[in-house]
Amino acid sequence: MVTVHRNEEGRQGQLSTDLDILWLLFGAYLVFFMQCGFALLEAGSVRAKNTKNILLKNVLDTSLGSLVWWAWGFPFAYGENGDHPNEFIGGTNLFMSNSNDVSPRDDEVGFNNANRYFAFWLFTWAFATTATTIVSGAVAERCQFRAYVIYTIVLTGFVYPIVVHWAWSTEGWLSPFRVNGDGEKDIVFSDTVGLIDFAGSGVVHMTGGAAALMAATVLGARYGRFSAEGKPIGLPGQSVALATLGVFILWFGWYGFNPVSTAAFYESMYVASKCAVTTTLAASAGCSTVLTIHILMNGTPDVLPALNGILAGLVSITAGCSVVEPYGAVLIGMIGGAVYKAASAALLRLRIDDPLDAGPVHFFGGVWGVLSVGFFATPANLRNAYGVDVPMSEDSAGLFYGGNGKQLGVQILAVVAIAAWSCSISLMMFLVLKHYGVLRVPQDEEITGLDVSQHSGGPRFQVNDQDGVKMVLGRRSLTGTHVSSPLSPS
Amino acid sequence: MVTVHRNEEGRQGQLSTDLDILWLLFGAYLVFFMQCGFALLEAGSVRAKNTKNILLKNVLDTSLGSLVWWAWGFPFAYGENGDHPNEFIGGTNLFMSNSNDVSPRDDEVGFNNANRYFAFWLFTWAFATTATTIVSGAVAERCQFRAYVIYTIVLTGFVYPIVVHWAWSTEGWLSPFRVNGDGEKDIVFSDTVGLIDFAGSGVVHMTGGAAALMAATVLGARYGRFSAEGKPIGLPGQSVALATLGVFILWFGWYGFNPVSTAAFYESMYVASKCAVTTTLAASAGCSTVLTIHILMNGTPDVLPALNGILAGLVSITAGCSVVEPYGAVLIGMIGGAVYKAASAALLRLRIDDPLDAGPVHFFGGVWGVLSVGFFATPANLRNAYGVDVPMSEDSAGLFYGGNGKQLGVQILAVVAIAAWSCSISLMMFLVLKHYGVLRVPQDEEITGLDVSQHSGGPRFQVNDQDGVKMVLGRRSLTGTHVSSPLSPS
Amino acid sequence: MVTVHRNEEGRQGQLSTDLDILWLLFGAYLVFFMQCGFALLEAGSVRAKNTKNILLKNVLDTSLGSLVWWAWGFPFAYGENGDHPNEFIGGTNLFMSNSNDVSPRDDEVGFNNANRYFAFWLFTWAFATTATTIVSGAVAERCQFRAYVIYTIVLTGFVYPIVVHWAWSTEGWLSPFRVNGDGEKDIVFSDTVGLIDFAGSGVVHMTGGAAALMAATVLGARYGRFSAEGKPIGLPGQSVALATLGVFILWFGWYGFNPVSTAAFYESMYVASKCAVTTTLAASAGCSTVLTIHILMNGTPDVLPALNGILAGLVSITAGCSVVEPYGAVLIGMIGGAVYKAASAALLRLRIDDPLDAGPVHFFGGVWGVLSVGFFATPANLRNAYGVDVPMSEDSAGLFYGGNGKQLGVQILAVVAIAAWSCSISLMMFLVLKHYGVLRVPQDEEITGLDVSQHSGGPRFQVNDQDGVKMVLGRRSLTGTHVSSPLSPS
Repeated sequence: MVTVHRNEEGRQGQLSTDLDILWLLFGAYLVFFMQCGFALLEAGSVRAKNTKNILLKNVLDTSLGSLVWWAWGFPFAYGENGDHPNEFIGGTNLFMSNSNDVSPRDDEVGFNNANRYFAFWLFTWAFATTATTIVSGAVAERCQFRAYVIYTIVLTGFVYPIVVHWAWSTEGWLSPFRVNGDGEKDIVFSDTVGLIDFAGSGVVHMTGGAAALMAATVLGARYGRFSAEGKPIGLPGQSVALATLGVFILWFGWYGFNPVSTAAFYESMYVASKCAVTTTLAASAGCSTVLTIHILMNGTPDVLPALNGILAGLVSITAGCSVVEPYGAVLIGMIGGAVYKAASAALLRLRIDDPLDAGPVHFFGGVWGVLSVGFFATPANLRNAYGVDVPMSEDSAGLFYGGNGKQLGVQILAVVAIAAWSCSISLMMFLVLKHYGVLRVPQDEEITGLDVSQHSGGPRFQVNDQDGVKMVLGRRSLTGTHVSSPLSPS
Repeated sequence: MVTVHRNEEGRQGQLSTDLDILWLLFGAYLVFFMQCGFALLEAGSVRAKNTKNILLKNVLDTSLGSLVWWAWGFPFAYGENGDHPNEFIGGTNLFMSNSNDVSPRDDEVGFNNANRYFAFWLFTWAFATTATTIVSGAVAERCQFRAYVIYTIVLTGFVYPIVVHWAWSTEGWLSPFRVNGDGEKDIVFSDTVGLIDFAGSGVVHMTGGAAALMAATVLGARYGRFSAEGKPIGLPGQSVALATLGVFILWFGWYGFNPVSTAAFYESMYVASKCAVTTTLAASAGCSTVLTIHILMNGTPDVLPALNGILAGLVSITAGCSVVEPYGAVLIGMIGGAVYKAASAALLRLRIDDPLDAGPVHFFGGVWGVLSVGFFATPANLRNAYGVDVPMSEDSAGLFYGGNGKQLGVQILAVVAIAAWSCSISLMMFLVLKHYGVLRVPQDEEITGLDVSQHSGGPRFQVNDQDGVKMVLGRRSLTGTHVSSPLSPS
Repeated sequence: MVTVHRNEEGRQGQLSTDLDILWLLFGAYLVFFMQCGFALLEAGSVRAKNTKNILLKNVLDTSLGSLVWWAWGFPFAYGENGDHPNEFIGGTNLFMSNSNDVSPRDDEVGFNNANRYFAFWLFTWAFATTATTIVSGAVAERCQFRAYVIYTIVLTGFVYPIVVHWAWSTEGWLSPFRVNGDGEKDIVFSDTVGLIDFAGSGVVHMTGGAAALMAATVLGARYGRFSAEGKPIGLPGQSVALATLGVFILWFGWYGFNPVSTAAFYESMYVASKCAVTTTLAASAGCSTVLTIHILMNGTPDVLPALNGILAGLVSITAGCSVVEPYGAVLIGMIGGAVYKAASAALLRLRIDDPLDAGPVHFFGGVWGVLSVGFFATPANLRNAYGVDVPMSEDSAGLFYGGNGKQLGVQILAVVAIAAWSCSISLMMFLVLKHYGVLRVPQDEEITGLDVSQHSGGPRFQVNDQDGVKMVLGRRSLTGTHVSSPLSPS
């Protein structure tokens, strides 16, 4: 790369930009890897007869989601409307049409904030695909492929970007980063910070979780999930090893999700390191809590509740990771675990079948995460993470740290707004899909398993060779257990 | 570490070196992790009876390859001959004999470029083992262990380092980094940049892919792969979950492969972030394209084509990731997907059995990647990534951006040269191995499965205890499906 | 984050702190990911009937260990006693009670070393959970869940932190970082560096390995592991693919373990890059050596020995990675592989059943690692890594590089001290657990498999729904092979 920056000031600016980009790339890679975590958690948690189906869906939402985020998702979220700021939706630079403007220039010395564009895009892309992929767990084992393609486009390209615009852009009505025409801070809910959702308990997890809940409700329960009297019947997933691997990868990726949400390197690494610690403690507390509850209720420990406890802890701390104390994180994770357990039990009573518990983990965990900030945010952390002056922090601090409840009010408002938006659009979409008969697979196909009915093959590969010789190999089974009779070539 | 650098200039130089090392280590780790991706993709794609065999080969090419790269591979690639530069092959500092010279020194203040040596070695090592491991997919399920050891040494220690020397050293005849005795730029194909192969569509993927193609051709098809009339018969792999995990890890690792190929941190991170974005878009476009073609041809979506589409997109963008626009990356990925599909079909017609499609993905994807630069490279990106002055960029720009075709000519020349070199040496090697009967396992052993015949065990572990009690456990099967009769202790 | 640092000096200090934090976080994430590697290596190496059990244990030691490390583990290790330094144990700032003191302050300009606190905590946390999880391999397939919970607390909260305090704090009697009240260096074994155990061959691996050996000894062998005449009988693990994945992840994570043990960024990256190279070479040499020995003894290559060879090489180089030459690393890895093989054979003769060979790999590999420094440390590397003046290096250099044996003496003393401490406390603990009957599961439960007996389920998930409908599904098997009769709902 040409050396266009010669003087000391330019060099410092350049270094600052370079380090910001490094940090954003590092975070983006980690968050991208969470796609793999979700894929494995879900593949391990479904029955063998639906393995290819769930994996294909996860591969697809990443790939298709990338193209959508490039084309109009990112513009809707962060595309600033310039002189006519829009509080609801962005919309400039579709298809990265500005990609030349963000390049370093010959006639410039030093610092160019725009150079961060690609790194920032990548970081936000990884978040967007995370929000979308949450739903794949809730629709597992019974959703048509076409419906999945459509919902991926709608969620990545419309539902999610609008919430991002509200909460994280420089124009959104909830955003703590909102500026007026002169570039000065301009918070709607004055005296508060605006919504504090550092890495997205609300923006990402509630949004994805809301869509998951609506999907599970509209789709209906899997065949055999409830007895005639409405008692739930276990449909055990195929591999606890894959699921555990998936959750470890998710935890690993969360270290990009939360700490890198500083989105800047300089003078931000203390906050980042605190986020990493609170994330760790909340995950651990969530795991221990859910496992303890499970043992008390069932008499034996089990690994699936422990895994969901980790996720519940992680989702819960995502909003407040930068503004709470370590022991606060432990408490938030514990409560998050309990919230997950209660929500999971409630869904079963309502006969809503969410195979991966995506709703209880992401939606209800997310709600608690956003609210927890209103209780646990401390003045010193608000100063470090959001630049709130300590003497004025009464309005923004949590109730337990001298706050007057104003911030808690903003958090409650955000929870209501995000839930209303995400649930209503998702509900409409899934109802329309159902109406046109493209939502759920026919019952015989569901019983046979989607791998055979939708992808002509079992959990093993099925090779469709070019010359028309097909071989449908695989494990056909009604119960999910192993049957070893390969079909003969058709 | 002792503080030997006291003044400001020294500190800046030190910081620059430290950051370069951080960046190279970060990239090296990610690219190393791709070994794991290849291992899992291959283990998932073969039949259960050959699991241990393919995993052992992947473990071995990493370990043995490291020792070879340390001993003479890296020296052949990057060992500069000083006063007598060699355009074809390097050859100094065998076994890291210079390891003391690259250490920081007491009598020195500031910047020492040589301090990057170990980090650079590690980064190039990860690339070398990638090139080698590509072949393991093509020889799966029928290659002797001895042959694998020999080819690993030849490829890591000879075939690949020579191509690297040509294209990326400061002496090679194709290299854009070529300097003369005075340290000034000295490009063979004047007015152009030299070969533009930023991260190695040609250097790494064509080289590995060429060896894979030759290996598959000389070895011959697996037993039962083609009917008597030459129709391909599916031999489904054992686990689509492992294969998907492998491809996600490869995609993750590619974020080291491409962006970190800046090989420097300072003023390079904008280019790195652009590479990350083009890599993402090409992978997504490749996936979506291959999946669409597959649905059009077969009526149902399937995950294996989607996975290979991702890889085809990634290989295609590897040469041009730093010099093309985002929408260019989408187009390159789409065409790369189509090239892969066509090449895969062509191999089947020729009755060449490449179990993992390593040739179509890496060789043909790599060829398209190198050529794509001649069409899609833009002047502004050439300036940022290679320091080409914009007024003089006519010779280096792609045909679609005002180029005069000169650069395309260099790219074509490189494709021919790399293909000729890699194919011819690999072909000779595999023919010699075949002649001496150490290439392919006997047919009965192939049918039984290599795990039992070559490693005395099935896909489960086989523990050879010290006292001579052996237990041959495992899944013996002619068809690849599950048979559960463990043998009794021998 | 508020910009409180305005002048150039402040900015430099801030940058230095920010970069240190980045480096520590990067390392912590990689080392944390090793938890996933251990979990998969162990899940793949046990029989299917114990899958959930081993995974749950790995999830639990991470989560519970985090809370223990937060509460009192880290304080015992690094909590400085101020005016009354304690050579044996630390003990301040329980439950991160100092978390406000380490925050950036308004009234401060520039560099604040304390800001690194959270990042350092996270890095040491990842190490602590590594030490603990080593044991899970040795107790596999026969240990009660309660015993596992207790030992996790004792090891993470007491045995391990004390060793860390000895060797790596600023107060410990073995530590090379020991300072007196005036902040000056104050080495107990004068003229030497103090113990050289850069990343913990002794501190981490010997400690964990010692507990593993004691556990395996007190627990006794698994049912069917030895014939009546004492001959070992193979009990093959369920999946070599999972185990290989686990080892690749461990290798990947080791690049955080060793290089990031510089614990600082500035002027430390050359040393870090050297550590990465020696780590790579030792892993490769260990793998090649063990594989060669295995082929010579058994006639066929196998992947499990190759995997353990990698781990033995990695453990061996962990102490000396920063102070030996690359060819020294190759030799250390080779010898480490041989040490592992010999120790593994010796345990079998003693009829000690360590299912994962955790003792031979981590304890004996660790012993050799600590000792190897006394032979292979070179003066130039000691200067770069530990600041030892070259003219005075006679006392600290290895025997092969002009050393007088003093340093070797310190290394031997440390081996004896760590082994004595870790073995004795662990032995007492396991004997007490055995006495109270909470150590080993009853034989019928062991034969049935811990998944069914302890977690009411097979390697598939078992869903304990809230309404009392339970379904015990799974693979019940006495031999570890597949049996496909799911139980009916109870």
